[in-house]
Amino acid sequence: MSNDVFEWPVRVYYEDTDAQGVVYYANYFRFMERARTEWLRALGVDQEHMLNVERRMFVVVNTTLDFIVPARFNDELLVTASLGKLSRASFDIEQNIYRGGVDGEVCCRGGVRAAFLNADTLKPLRVPADFFKEGH
Amino acid sequence: MSNDVFEWPVRVYYEDTDAQGVVYYANYFRFMERARTEWLRALGVDQEHMLNVERRMFVVVNTTLDFIVPARFNDELLVTASLGKLSRASFDIEQNIYRGGVDGEVCCRGGVRAAFLNADTLKPLRVPADFFKEGH
Amino acid sequence: MSNDVFEWPVRVYYEDTDAQGVVYYANYFRFMERARTEWLRALGVDQEHMLNVERRMFVVVNTTLDFIVPARFNDELLVTASLGKLSRASFDIEQNIYRGGVDGEVCCRGGVRAAFLNADTLKPLRVPADFFKEGH
Amino acid sequence: MSNDVFEWPVRVYYEDTDAQGVVYYANYFRFMERARTEWLRALGVDQEHMLNVERRMFVVVNTTLDFIVPARFNDELLVTASLGKLSRASFDIEQNIYRGGVDGEVCCRGGVRAAFLNADTLKPLRVPADFFKEGH
Repeated sequence: MSNDVFEWPVRVYYEDTDAQGVVYYANYFRFMERARTEWLRALGVDQEHMLNVERRMFVVVNTTLDFIVPARFNDELLVTASLGKLSRASFDIEQNIYRGGVDGEVCCRGGVRAAFLNADTLKPLRVPADFFKEGH
Repeated sequence: MSNDVFEWPVRVYYEDTDAQGVVYYANYFRFMERARTEWLRALGVDQEHMLNVERRMFVVVNTTLDFIVPARFNDELLVTASLGKLSRASFDIEQNIYRGGVDGEVCCRGGVRAAFLNADTLKPLRVPADFFKEGH
Repeated sequence: MSNDVFEWPVRVYYEDTDAQGVVYYANYFRFMERARTEWLRALGVDQEHMLNVERRMFVVVNTTLDFIVPARFNDELLVTASLGKLSRASFDIEQNIYRGGVDGEVCCRGGVRAAFLNADTLKPLRVPADFFKEGH
Repeated sequence: MSNDVFEWPVRVYYEDTDAQGVVYYANYFRFMERARTEWLRALGVDQEHMLNVERRMFVVVNTTLDFIVPARFNDELLVTASLGKLSRASFDIEQNIYRGGVDGEVCCRGGVRAAFLNADTLKPLRVPADFFKEGH
Protein backbone atom coordinates (compact mmCIF):
# COMPACT_ATOMS: atom_id res chain seq x y z
CA MET A 1 0.00 0.00 0.00
CA SER A 2 3.04 2.27 0.13
CA ASN A 3 2.11 4.18 -3.00
CA ASP A 4 -1.53 4.52 -2.13
CA VAL A 5 -3.21 7.37 -0.38
CA PHE A 6 -5.80 6.53 2.25
CA GLU A 7 -8.72 8.98 2.45
CA TRP A 8 -11.10 9.56 5.35
CA PRO A 9 -14.03 12.01 5.42
CA VAL A 10 -14.50 14.31 8.42
CA ARG A 11 -17.46 16.59 9.05
CA VAL A 12 -16.81 19.81 10.99
CA TYR A 13 -19.09 20.26 14.03
CA TYR A 14 -19.42 23.13 16.50
CA GLU A 15 -17.06 21.27 18.87
CA ASP A 16 -14.28 21.72 16.31
CA THR A 17 -14.65 25.46 15.79
CA ASP A 18 -13.65 28.46 17.88
CA ALA A 19 -14.77 32.05 18.36
CA GLN A 20 -12.78 33.13 15.29
CA GLY A 21 -15.43 31.18 13.34
CA VAL A 22 -13.05 28.54 12.00
CA VAL A 23 -11.70 25.15 13.03
CA TYR A 24 -9.45 25.57 16.09
CA TYR A 25 -5.90 24.77 14.97
CA ALA A 26 -5.27 21.91 17.40
CA ASN A 27 -8.35 20.08 16.16
CA TYR A 28 -6.87 19.36 12.73
CA PHE A 29 -4.53 17.00 14.59
CA ARG A 30 -7.57 15.14 15.91
CA PHE A 31 -8.85 14.78 12.35
CA MET A 32 -5.44 13.52 11.22
CA GLU A 33 -5.39 10.90 13.93
CA ARG A 34 -8.84 9.66 12.92
CA ALA A 35 -7.54 9.11 9.41
CA ARG A 36 -4.46 7.28 10.71
CA THR A 37 -6.56 5.05 12.94
CA GLU A 38 -8.93 4.21 10.10
CA TRP A 39 -5.99 3.58 7.80
CA LEU A 40 -4.56 1.10 10.29
CA ARG A 41 -7.99 -0.51 10.58
CA ALA A 42 -8.20 -0.79 6.77
CA LEU A 43 -4.76 -2.43 6.81
CA GLY A 44 -6.07 -5.01 9.29
CA VAL A 45 -4.22 -3.63 12.33
CA ASP A 46 -6.09 -4.03 15.64
CA GLN A 47 -4.65 -1.22 17.79
CA GLU A 48 -6.50 -2.35 20.93
CA HIS A 49 -5.11 -5.87 20.69
CA MET A 50 -1.71 -4.43 19.86
CA LEU A 51 -1.73 -2.20 22.95
CA ASN A 52 -3.45 -4.43 25.48
CA VAL A 53 -2.18 -7.87 24.46
CA GLU A 54 1.04 -7.33 22.49
CA ARG A 55 1.91 -4.21 24.57
CA ARG A 56 3.11 -2.34 21.52
CA MET A 57 1.92 1.04 20.33
CA PHE A 58 2.45 3.80 17.85
CA VAL A 59 3.35 7.22 19.09
CA VAL A 60 3.76 10.43 17.17
CA VAL A 61 7.27 11.81 17.67
CA ASN A 62 7.05 14.87 15.44
CA THR A 63 4.47 16.78 13.46
CA THR A 64 4.64 19.61 10.98
CA LEU A 65 1.56 21.24 9.56
CA ASP A 66 0.85 24.21 7.30
CA PHE A 67 -2.51 25.84 7.92
CA ILE A 68 -3.42 27.15 4.46
CA VAL A 69 -7.16 27.79 4.29
CA PRO A 70 -9.37 27.60 7.37
CA ALA A 71 -12.18 25.04 7.50
CA ARG A 72 -15.54 26.08 8.91
CA PHE A 73 -18.61 24.68 10.63
CA ASN A 74 -20.39 22.08 8.48
CA ASP A 75 -17.53 21.66 6.03
CA GLU A 76 -17.00 18.16 4.70
CA LEU A 77 -13.28 17.57 4.80
CA LEU A 78 -11.20 14.77 3.37
CA VAL A 79 -8.13 13.75 5.34
CA THR A 80 -5.43 11.73 3.66
CA ALA A 81 -2.66 9.50 4.97
CA SER A 82 0.13 7.93 2.98
CA LEU A 83 3.44 6.38 3.83
CA GLY A 84 6.49 8.56 3.41
CA LYS A 85 10.00 7.63 4.48
CA LEU A 86 10.23 4.38 6.43
CA SER A 87 13.27 3.77 8.60
CA ARG A 88 14.13 1.12 11.18
CA ALA A 89 12.32 2.66 14.12
CA SER A 90 10.13 5.36 12.68
CA PHE A 91 8.12 6.23 9.61
CA ASP A 92 6.67 9.35 8.10
CA ILE A 93 2.99 9.67 7.32
CA GLU A 94 2.11 12.45 4.91
CA GLN A 95 -1.28 13.94 5.62
CA ASN A 96 -3.30 16.63 3.90
CA ILE A 97 -6.74 17.98 4.64
CA TYR A 98 -8.95 18.99 1.73
CA ARG A 99 -12.30 20.65 1.41
CA GLY A 100 -14.39 19.25 -1.41
CA GLY A 101 -12.30 16.18 -2.18
CA VAL A 102 -8.66 15.69 -3.15
CA ASP A 103 -9.23 17.91 -6.20
CA GLY A 104 -10.58 20.67 -3.99
CA GLU A 105 -8.99 23.29 -1.82
CA VAL A 106 -6.12 22.28 0.48
CA CYS A 107 -6.82 23.37 4.07
CA CYS A 108 -3.74 21.82 5.69
CA ARG A 109 -0.62 20.14 4.44
CA GLY A 110 1.88 18.25 6.54
CA GLY A 111 2.27 15.02 8.39
CA VAL A 112 3.64 13.16 11.34
CA ARG A 113 6.63 11.03 12.14
CA ALA A 114 5.60 8.00 14.14
CA ALA A 115 7.55 5.45 16.13
CA PHE A 116 6.61 1.96 17.16
CA LEU A 117 7.23 1.35 20.87
CA ASN A 118 7.18 -1.34 23.49
CA ALA A 119 4.30 -0.04 25.65
CA ASP A 120 5.96 -1.13 28.90
CA THR A 121 9.54 0.01 28.38
CA LEU A 122 8.72 2.78 25.87
CA LYS A 123 11.75 1.56 23.89
CA PRO A 124 11.52 1.78 20.09
CA LEU A 125 10.78 -1.38 18.14
CA ARG A 126 11.58 -2.16 14.53
CA VAL A 127 8.60 -1.51 12.26
CA PRO A 128 7.72 -4.85 10.60
CA ALA A 129 8.62 -4.80 6.89
CA ASP A 130 5.15 -5.83 5.75
CA PHE A 131 3.26 -3.57 8.11
CA PHE A 132 1.91 -1.23 5.47
CA LYS A 133 0.66 -4.03 3.28
CA GLU A 134 -3.01 -4.91 3.50
CA GLY A 135 -4.35 -8.15 4.89
CA HIS A 136 -2.13 -9.15 7.79
CA MET B 1 -15.16 20.58 54.79
CA SER B 2 -18.73 19.53 54.05
CA ASN B 3 -20.19 22.98 54.54
CA ASP B 4 -17.50 24.75 52.63
CA VAL B 5 -17.48 25.68 49.01
CA PHE B 6 -14.28 25.09 47.09
CA GLU B 7 -13.52 27.67 44.39
CA TRP B 8 -11.26 27.33 41.37
CA PRO B 9 -10.56 30.03 38.75
CA VAL B 10 -10.69 29.14 35.05
CA ARG B 11 -9.69 31.40 32.19
CA VAL B 12 -11.53 30.94 28.88
CA TYR B 13 -9.21 30.39 25.90
CA TYR B 14 -9.97 30.02 22.17
CA GLU B 15 -9.87 26.22 22.61
CA ASP B 16 -12.98 26.50 24.82
CA THR B 17 -15.12 28.56 22.46
CA ASP B 18 -17.05 27.71 19.32
CA ALA B 19 -18.25 29.48 16.18
CA GLN B 20 -21.29 30.84 18.05
CA GLY B 21 -18.74 32.99 19.89
CA VAL B 22 -19.30 31.44 23.30
CA VAL B 23 -17.93 28.56 25.36
CA TYR B 24 -18.94 25.25 23.74
CA TYR B 25 -21.42 23.58 26.08
CA ALA B 26 -19.43 20.37 26.65
CA ASN B 27 -16.42 22.37 27.81
CA TYR B 28 -18.10 23.56 31.01
CA PHE B 29 -17.83 19.93 32.12
CA ARG B 30 -14.09 20.11 31.61
CA PHE B 31 -13.98 23.22 33.83
CA MET B 32 -16.06 21.43 36.47
CA GLU B 33 -13.70 18.48 36.51
CA ARG B 34 -10.71 20.77 36.99
CA ALA B 35 -12.42 22.20 40.07
CA ARG B 36 -13.19 18.71 41.42
CA THR B 37 -9.62 17.55 40.84
CA GLU B 38 -8.20 20.63 42.59
CA TRP B 39 -10.70 20.18 45.43
CA LEU B 40 -9.49 16.61 45.93
CA ARG B 41 -5.90 17.84 45.83
CA ALA B 42 -6.72 20.50 48.45
CA LEU B 43 -8.26 17.73 50.59
CA GLY B 44 -5.00 15.79 50.35
CA VAL B 45 -6.28 13.11 47.96
CA ASP B 46 -3.68 11.81 45.50
CA GLN B 47 -5.78 10.56 42.57
CA GLU B 48 -2.81 9.06 40.74
CA HIS B 49 -1.78 7.00 43.73
CA MET B 50 -5.40 6.08 44.30
CA LEU B 51 -5.80 4.83 40.72
CA ASN B 52 -2.43 3.25 40.08
CA VAL B 53 -1.61 1.82 43.51
CA GLU B 54 -4.89 1.44 45.40
CA ARG B 55 -6.80 0.72 42.14
CA ARG B 56 -9.74 2.85 43.20
CA MET B 57 -11.23 5.73 41.31
CA PHE B 58 -14.04 8.23 41.19
CA VAL B 59 -16.41 8.18 38.26
CA VAL B 60 -19.22 10.54 37.43
CA VAL B 61 -22.51 8.62 37.21
CA ASN B 62 -24.83 11.52 36.50
CA THR B 63 -24.67 15.19 35.71
CA THR B 64 -27.26 17.92 35.44
CA LEU B 65 -26.41 21.41 34.32
CA ASP B 66 -28.35 24.58 33.53
CA PHE B 67 -26.67 26.84 31.00
CA ILE B 68 -27.81 30.28 32.10
CA VAL B 69 -25.49 32.92 30.65
CA PRO B 70 -22.81 32.04 28.08
CA ALA B 71 -19.17 32.62 28.93
CA ARG B 72 -16.88 34.10 26.29
CA PHE B 73 -13.24 34.22 25.20
CA ASN B 74 -11.01 35.74 27.87
CA ASP B 75 -13.61 35.55 30.64
CA GLU B 76 -12.29 34.75 34.09
CA LEU B 77 -14.65 32.20 35.55
CA LEU B 78 -14.91 30.84 39.04
CA VAL B 79 -15.98 27.21 39.35
CA THR B 80 -17.27 25.95 42.68
CA ALA B 81 -17.57 22.48 44.18
CA SER B 82 -19.29 21.56 47.42
CA LEU B 83 -20.51 18.34 48.90
CA GLY B 84 -24.23 17.67 48.59
CA LYS B 85 -25.94 14.43 49.58
CA LEU B 86 -23.55 11.66 50.63
CA SER B 87 -24.79 8.08 50.52
CA ARG B 88 -23.02 4.72 50.92
CA ALA B 89 -21.76 4.39 47.37
CA SER B 90 -22.21 7.79 45.80
CA PHE B 91 -22.18 11.47 46.62
CA ASP B 92 -23.44 14.63 45.03
CA ILE B 93 -21.14 17.52 44.20
CA GLU B 94 -22.88 20.81 43.62
CA GLN B 95 -21.06 22.96 41.09
CA ASN B 96 -21.72 26.44 39.78
CA ILE B 97 -19.77 28.52 37.32
CA TYR B 98 -19.63 32.28 37.88
CA ARG B 99 -18.24 35.18 35.93
CA GLY B 100 -16.72 37.85 38.12
CA GLY B 101 -16.62 35.89 41.36
CA VAL B 102 -19.32 34.16 43.45
CA ASP B 103 -21.14 37.49 43.76
CA GLY B 104 -21.15 37.86 39.98
CA GLU B 105 -23.26 36.46 37.21
CA VAL B 106 -24.06 32.73 37.26
CA CYS B 107 -23.14 31.12 33.93
CA CYS B 108 -23.99 27.51 34.87
CA ARG B 109 -25.66 25.85 37.80
CA GLY B 110 -25.75 22.11 38.48
CA GLY B 111 -23.53 19.33 39.59
CA VAL B 112 -22.52 15.72 39.35
CA ARG B 113 -23.22 12.52 41.20
CA ALA B 114 -20.01 10.55 41.65
CA ALA B 115 -19.34 6.98 42.69
CA PHE B 116 -16.21 5.44 44.15
CA LEU B 117 -15.20 2.27 42.32
CA ASN B 118 -12.75 -0.58 42.42
CA ALA B 119 -10.76 0.20 39.26
CA ASP B 120 -10.37 -3.49 38.36
CA THR B 121 -13.86 -4.84 38.99
CA LEU B 122 -15.65 -1.50 38.49
CA LYS B 123 -17.77 -2.45 41.54
CA PRO B 124 -18.87 0.40 43.81
CA LEU B 125 -16.98 0.94 47.06
CA ARG B 126 -18.19 2.63 50.20
CA VAL B 127 -17.05 6.27 50.35
CA PRO B 128 -14.87 6.63 53.47
CA ALA B 129 -16.67 8.66 56.15
CA ASP B 130 -13.83 11.14 56.58
CA PHE B 131 -13.09 11.55 52.91
CA PHE B 132 -14.29 15.11 52.65
CA LYS B 133 -12.33 16.28 55.63
CA GLU B 134 -9.01 17.97 54.99
CA GLY B 135 -5.66 16.57 55.95
CA HIS B 136 -5.76 12.84 55.32
CA MET C 1 -41.05 13.17 12.85
CA SER C 2 -42.02 13.57 16.50
CA ASN C 3 -42.42 9.85 17.11
CA ASP C 4 -39.29 8.89 15.29
CA VAL C 5 -35.87 8.36 16.72
CA PHE C 6 -32.93 9.69 14.75
CA GLU C 7 -29.76 7.56 14.96
CA TRP C 8 -26.19 8.61 14.29
CA PRO C 9 -23.09 6.38 14.51
CA VAL C 10 -19.98 7.61 16.32
CA ARG C 11 -16.62 5.87 16.43
CA VAL C 12 -14.50 6.35 19.57
CA TYR C 13 -10.96 7.59 18.84
CA TYR C 14 -8.01 8.23 21.17
CA GLU C 15 -9.00 11.92 21.30
CA ASP C 16 -12.21 10.90 23.09
CA THR C 17 -10.64 8.78 25.81
CA ASP C 18 -8.76 9.62 29.00
CA ALA C 19 -6.16 8.03 31.24
CA GLN C 20 -8.86 5.99 33.00
CA GLY C 21 -9.08 4.09 29.68
CA VAL C 22 -12.64 5.15 28.88
CA VAL C 23 -14.40 7.99 27.07
CA TYR C 24 -13.91 11.23 29.03
CA TYR C 25 -17.33 12.20 30.40
CA ALA C 26 -17.56 15.62 28.72
CA ASN C 27 -17.02 14.05 25.31
CA TYR C 28 -20.37 12.26 25.31
CA PHE C 29 -21.86 15.75 24.98
CA ARG C 30 -19.84 16.26 21.81
CA PHE C 31 -21.26 13.00 20.43
CA MET C 32 -24.77 14.12 21.35
CA GLU C 33 -24.34 17.39 19.53
CA ARG C 34 -23.14 15.61 16.40
CA ALA C 35 -26.37 13.58 16.43
CA ARG C 36 -28.47 16.72 16.92
CA THR C 37 -26.68 18.53 14.09
CA GLU C 38 -27.14 15.57 11.75
CA TRP C 39 -30.78 15.28 12.80
CA LEU C 40 -31.34 18.93 11.88
CA ARG C 41 -29.57 18.33 8.58
CA ALA C 42 -31.81 15.32 7.89
CA LEU C 43 -34.82 17.53 8.64
CA GLY C 44 -33.59 20.01 6.05
CA VAL C 45 -32.42 22.67 8.51
CA ASP C 46 -29.37 24.66 7.39
CA GLN C 47 -27.83 25.83 10.66
CA GLU C 48 -25.22 28.01 8.96
CA HIS C 49 -27.83 29.89 6.95
CA MET C 50 -30.00 30.10 10.05
CA LEU C 51 -27.17 31.63 12.10
CA ASN C 52 -25.48 33.84 9.52
CA VAL C 53 -28.45 35.01 7.45
CA GLU C 54 -31.56 34.61 9.61
CA ARG C 55 -29.55 35.36 12.80
CA ARG C 56 -31.37 32.66 14.74
CA MET C 57 -29.77 29.79 16.60
CA PHE C 58 -30.40 26.88 18.90
CA VAL C 59 -28.77 26.84 22.28
CA VAL C 60 -28.78 24.14 24.91
CA VAL C 61 -30.26 25.50 28.15
CA ASN C 62 -30.10 22.34 30.25
CA THR C 63 -28.71 18.85 30.05
CA THR C 64 -29.06 15.76 32.19
CA LEU C 65 -27.12 12.61 31.54
CA ASP C 66 -26.68 9.26 33.28
CA PHE C 67 -23.34 7.61 32.63
CA ILE C 68 -24.22 3.91 32.80
CA VAL C 69 -21.52 1.88 31.07
CA PRO C 70 -18.27 3.47 29.88
CA ALA C 71 -17.42 3.42 26.18
CA ARG C 72 -13.86 2.63 25.14
CA PHE C 73 -11.36 3.26 22.34
CA ASN C 74 -12.58 1.84 19.02
CA ASP C 75 -16.17 1.31 20.17
CA GLU C 76 -18.83 1.94 17.58
CA LEU C 77 -21.55 3.89 19.32
CA LEU C 78 -25.02 4.82 18.20
CA VAL C 79 -26.35 8.16 19.40
CA THR C 80 -30.06 8.83 19.25
CA ALA C 81 -32.12 12.00 19.23
CA SER C 82 -35.89 12.28 19.46
CA LEU C 83 -38.26 15.05 20.27
CA GLY C 84 -39.63 15.12 23.80
CA LYS C 85 -41.78 17.88 25.24
CA LEU C 86 -42.19 20.88 22.96
CA SER C 87 -43.22 24.19 24.49
CA ARG C 88 -43.42 27.73 23.11
CA ALA C 89 -39.80 28.67 23.54
CA SER C 90 -37.99 25.43 24.24
CA PHE C 91 -38.07 21.74 23.48
CA ASP C 92 -36.62 18.61 24.96
CA ILE C 93 -34.46 16.26 22.96
CA GLU C 94 -34.08 12.80 24.42
CA GLN C 95 -30.72 11.27 23.66
CA ASN C 96 -29.23 7.89 24.45
CA ILE C 97 -25.87 6.44 23.54
CA TYR C 98 -25.68 2.74 22.77
CA ARG C 99 -22.88 0.33 22.06
CA GLY C 100 -23.76 -2.25 19.43
CA GLY C 101 -26.97 -0.67 18.16
CA VAL C 102 -30.22 0.33 19.87
CA ASP C 103 -30.69 -3.28 21.01
CA GLY C 104 -27.24 -3.23 22.61
CA GLU C 105 -25.87 -1.91 25.85
CA VAL C 106 -26.89 1.61 26.95
CA CYS C 107 -23.79 3.70 27.73
CA CYS C 108 -25.58 6.98 28.49
CA ARG C 109 -29.17 8.03 28.89
CA GLY C 110 -30.46 11.58 29.05
CA GLY C 111 -31.03 14.57 26.90
CA VAL C 112 -30.98 18.31 26.48
CA ARG C 113 -33.47 21.14 26.64
CA ALA C 114 -32.90 23.55 23.79
CA ALA C 115 -34.15 27.03 23.11
CA PHE C 116 -34.42 28.91 19.86
CA LEU C 117 -32.90 32.38 20.07
CA ASN C 118 -32.49 35.58 18.15
CA ALA C 119 -28.72 35.51 17.64
CA ASP C 120 -28.38 39.29 18.07
CA THR C 121 -30.61 39.95 21.08
CA LEU C 122 -30.32 36.42 22.56
CA LYS C 123 -34.08 36.67 23.21
CA PRO C 124 -36.09 33.43 22.92
CA LEU C 125 -38.12 32.88 19.77
CA ARG C 126 -41.16 30.67 19.31
CA VAL C 127 -40.21 27.29 17.83
CA PRO C 128 -42.05 26.98 14.49
CA ALA C 129 -44.84 24.38 14.73
CA ASP C 130 -43.62 22.38 11.75
CA PHE C 131 -39.95 22.51 12.64
CA PHE C 132 -39.59 18.84 13.43
CA LYS C 133 -41.29 17.70 10.25
CA GLU C 134 -39.04 16.69 7.39
CA GLY C 135 -38.75 18.53 4.14
CA HIS C 136 -38.91 22.23 4.88
CA MET D 1 10.93 41.63 24.97
CA SER D 2 12.54 39.88 22.02
CA ASN D 3 15.24 38.23 24.09
CA ASP D 4 12.95 37.21 26.89
CA VAL D 5 11.16 33.95 27.32
CA PHE D 6 7.61 34.08 28.58
CA GLU D 7 6.61 31.16 30.86
CA TRP D 8 3.15 29.90 31.65
CA PRO D 9 2.28 26.98 33.98
CA VAL D 10 -0.22 24.35 32.86
CA ARG D 11 -1.62 21.56 35.00
CA VAL D 12 -2.55 18.30 33.23
CA TYR D 13 -6.13 17.14 33.90
CA TYR D 14 -8.00 14.01 32.82
CA GLU D 15 -9.46 15.99 29.89
CA ASP D 16 -5.93 16.27 28.46
CA THR D 17 -4.99 12.60 28.61
CA ASP D 18 -5.95 9.60 26.50
CA ALA D 19 -6.24 5.85 26.91
CA GLN D 20 -2.48 5.46 26.35
CA GLY D 21 -2.17 7.13 29.77
CA VAL D 22 -0.42 10.26 28.50
CA VAL D 23 -1.36 13.70 27.19
CA TYR D 24 -3.10 13.34 23.81
CA TYR D 25 -0.76 14.82 21.22
CA ALA D 26 -3.16 17.48 19.90
CA ASN D 27 -3.63 18.89 23.39
CA TYR D 28 -0.08 20.21 23.63
CA PHE D 29 -1.17 22.72 20.98
CA ARG D 30 -3.92 23.90 23.32
CA PHE D 31 -1.31 24.40 26.05
CA MET D 32 0.88 26.33 23.63
CA GLU D 33 -1.97 28.63 22.68
CA ARG D 34 -2.70 29.36 26.34
CA ALA D 35 0.91 30.48 26.75
CA ARG D 36 0.71 32.67 23.63
CA THR D 37 -2.55 34.26 24.78
CA GLU D 38 -1.11 34.99 28.23
CA TRP D 39 2.05 36.35 26.65
CA LEU D 40 0.00 38.76 24.56
CA ARG D 41 -1.94 39.74 27.68
CA ALA D 42 1.33 40.37 29.52
CA LEU D 43 2.45 42.54 26.60
CA GLY D 44 -0.75 44.57 26.98
CA VAL D 45 -2.48 43.24 23.86
CA ASP D 46 -6.28 42.95 24.15
CA GLN D 47 -7.15 40.22 21.64
CA GLU D 48 -10.90 40.69 22.03
CA HIS D 49 -10.70 44.39 21.26
CA MET D 50 -8.30 43.64 18.44
CA LEU D 51 -10.70 41.12 16.87
CA ASN D 52 -14.06 42.76 17.56
CA VAL D 53 -13.18 46.44 17.21
CA GLU D 54 -10.00 46.66 15.14
CA ARG D 55 -10.97 43.54 13.14
CA ARG D 56 -7.44 42.22 13.18
CA MET D 57 -6.31 38.84 14.42
CA PHE D 58 -3.40 36.48 14.73
CA VAL D 59 -3.57 33.14 13.02
CA VAL D 60 -1.15 30.26 13.14
CA VAL D 61 0.09 29.45 9.64
CA ASN D 62 2.51 26.66 10.49
CA THR D 63 3.54 24.57 13.45
CA THR D 64 6.29 22.08 14.07
CA LEU D 65 6.58 20.11 17.27
CA ASP D 66 8.80 17.33 18.56
CA PHE D 67 7.14 15.09 21.14
CA ILE D 68 10.07 14.04 23.31
CA VAL D 69 8.79 12.81 26.66
CA PRO D 70 5.07 12.29 27.32
CA ALA D 71 3.37 14.32 30.04
CA ARG D 72 0.90 12.59 32.34
CA PHE D 73 -2.16 13.27 34.49
CA ASN D 74 -1.41 15.74 37.28
CA ASP D 75 1.91 16.88 35.83
CA GLU D 76 2.73 20.54 36.29
CA LEU D 77 4.08 21.75 33.00
CA LEU D 78 5.74 24.97 32.06
CA VAL D 79 5.07 26.27 28.56
CA THR D 80 7.36 28.89 27.09
CA ALA D 81 6.96 31.39 24.28
CA SER D 82 9.63 33.61 22.81
CA LEU D 83 9.98 35.60 19.66
CA GLY D 84 12.00 34.01 16.88
CA LYS D 85 12.33 35.40 13.36
CA LEU D 86 10.14 38.42 12.67
CA SER D 87 9.36 39.29 9.07
CA ARG D 88 6.93 41.76 7.47
CA ALA D 89 3.83 39.64 7.63
CA SER D 90 4.67 36.77 9.94
CA PHE D 91 6.74 35.91 12.97
CA ASP D 92 7.99 32.76 14.59
CA ILE D 93 7.22 31.92 18.19
CA GLU D 94 9.47 29.32 19.72
CA GLN D 95 7.68 27.22 22.30
CA ASN D 96 8.86 24.42 24.56
CA ILE D 97 6.98 22.45 27.17
CA TYR D 98 8.86 21.39 30.30
CA ARG D 99 8.04 19.24 33.27
CA GLY D 100 9.46 20.57 36.49
CA GLY D 101 10.50 23.99 35.28
CA VAL D 102 12.80 25.19 32.50
CA ASP D 103 15.66 23.26 34.10
CA GLY D 104 13.58 20.08 34.05
CA GLU D 105 12.72 17.54 31.41
CA VAL D 106 11.68 18.77 27.96
CA CYS D 107 8.37 17.20 26.92
CA CYS D 108 7.93 19.07 23.63
CA ARG D 109 10.08 21.38 21.56
CA GLY D 110 8.90 23.43 18.61
CA GLY D 111 6.87 26.45 17.80
CA VAL D 112 4.48 28.19 15.49
CA ARG D 113 4.66 30.70 12.69
CA ALA D 114 1.91 33.27 13.07
CA ALA D 115 0.53 35.89 10.73
CA PHE D 116 -1.37 39.05 11.49
CA LEU D 117 -4.54 39.36 9.39
CA ASN D 118 -7.35 41.70 8.57
CA ALA D 119 -10.25 39.73 10.08
CA ASP D 120 -12.65 40.71 7.30
CA THR D 121 -10.52 40.25 4.21
CA LEU D 122 -8.15 37.66 5.74
CA LYS D 123 -5.32 39.58 4.02
CA PRO D 124 -1.98 39.72 5.85
CA LEU D 125 -1.07 42.91 7.69
CA ARG D 126 2.35 44.20 8.61
CA VAL D 127 3.24 43.31 12.19
CA PRO D 128 3.81 46.61 14.05
CA ALA D 129 7.50 47.10 14.85
CA ASP D 130 6.93 47.65 18.55
CA PHE D 131 4.41 44.86 18.99
CA PHE D 132 6.59 42.65 21.10
CA LYS D 133 7.57 45.41 23.46
CA GLU D 134 5.73 45.65 26.73
CA GLY D 135 3.43 48.47 27.71
CA HIS D 136 1.50 49.51 24.64
